[in-house]
Amino acid sequence: MHQTFDAALEINLLHANQEGADHNREHFDRWGITCLNVMSSPGAGKTVLLERTLAALSKEFKIAVIEGDMTTELDAERLRKYDVPVIAINTGRSCHLDSKMVAGGIHQLAHQYNPSQLDLILVENVGNLVCPAEFEVGEHAKVALLSVTEGEDKPLKYPVMFQEADCLLIAKVDLAPYLEIDLERIEANVRQINPHVTIIPISAKTGEGLEAWLAWVQSQVRAKRSLALNH
Amino acid sequence: MHQTFDAALEINLLHANQEGADHNREHFDRWGITCLNVMSSPGAGKTVLLERTLAALSKEFKIAVIEGDMTTELDAERLRKYDVPVIAINTGRSCHLDSKMVAGGIHQLAHQYNPSQLDLILVENVGNLVCPAEFEVGEHAKVALLSVTEGEDKPLKYPVMFQEADCLLIAKVDLAPYLEIDLERIEANVRQINPHVTIIPISAKTGEGLEAWLAWVQSQVRAKRSLALNH
Repeated sequence: MHQTFDAALEINLLHANQEGADHNREHFDRWGITCLNVMSSPGAGKTVLLERTLAALSKEFKIAVIEGDMTTELDAERLRKYDVPVIAINTGRSCHLDSKMVAGGIHQLAHQYNPSQLDLILVENVGNLVCPAEFEVGEHAKVALLSVTEGEDKPLKYPVMFQEADCLLIAKVDLAPYLEIDLERIEANVRQINPHVTIIPISAKTGEGLEAWLAWVQSQVRAKRSLALNH
Repeated sequence: MHQTFDAALEINLLHANQEGADHNREHFDRWGITCLNVMSSPGAGKTVLLERTLAALSKEFKIAVIEGDMTTELDAERLRKYDVPVIAINTGRSCHLDSKMVAGGIHQLAHQYNPSQLDLILVENVGNLVCPAEFEVGEHAKVALLSVTEGEDKPLKYPVMFQEADCLLIAKVDLAPYLEIDLERIEANVRQINPHVTIIPISAKTGEGLEAWLAWVQSQVRAKRSLALNH
């Protein structure tokens, strides 16, 4: 995150954000909604992953998307084609979504839909491998993408994102033959930072790994639903 | 940058950073040094660009590198092989270099070398397409890289970096045949944000565009040297 020349201020900032995130999560839990926070560098393939996910799962689950971008609704427009509610949040100069922005998105959603009928909210964060990892928005799990084009060393150089991730997708594996890159080395570097994370190599182009990703999402949603039914 | 829930604080933060940047730049000007701030998303190819630049120009110019990374000295070690002074700055949780960190780097350099004998300082920023664009470090020009793998829409979605850039390198163009991507569309999107920026498509792998990049760097350094000689 930004150094503010004031450690107390940074702690307050993160503390206020965390309170907001916990509040958002309480809402989600009451409504039986699973919330996933999808993060990566710009252009690693978050939006196309969401396209594939909506195409595959929007019959089985009632899904909404909260789409964070500094400017434009380009990504939101791509996802609206899948006939699900998409709330676009423009962060302006801010480099990540925070819990307050997402609370605003939830309120917008709740004006248009009965939130207790939703199963899954996918949050697409601003493209940034650093800051979004420090600002929870109320998610139940963090999904991070690392494109093979970004290089093997990124888990070591940007450790916070990889420490925080519950599911790590190694994206664009179809490009691996054209790069001097070792997929096993990437996995080993991720495991060095986060030994127990779920790692799934995927390609939105060839479809590789999508089944495993969709199964992971389904397991998250079903676990939350059965928990909500038992309350 | 991060929203701090306090506009006045953000202005103070940027203001304090700008004062530090102006101070660094005064030092550089006095010493006749050109400083370039090299920025991009993680994995767009900053370090390999610096490797090629040091290999080509370190005979002609006396060059030093200030290497910013959240953690590790992996990149600094790669660049030390070129037998130039490399100062590694670990930013910890911070998502960008600021002028105070770079001032620390300059002081470290000045302990080991006579700075007035340097021609060029290359600053490699933390991999982040958002925040570094807002924090000047004292550079005379900003260089931004966009890898073709990041997609055509990034200039529109992350406009601050593209507004601020003096030179924009479209990197990894050797991968373009394997992507559904239109290089002219990328250029048009960059020009929409910044009509007068110098755009150079490059590939560190095939060498495409490197000559144009090196000529751009040479022109920056020579202009600064002739200015310093006339004072």
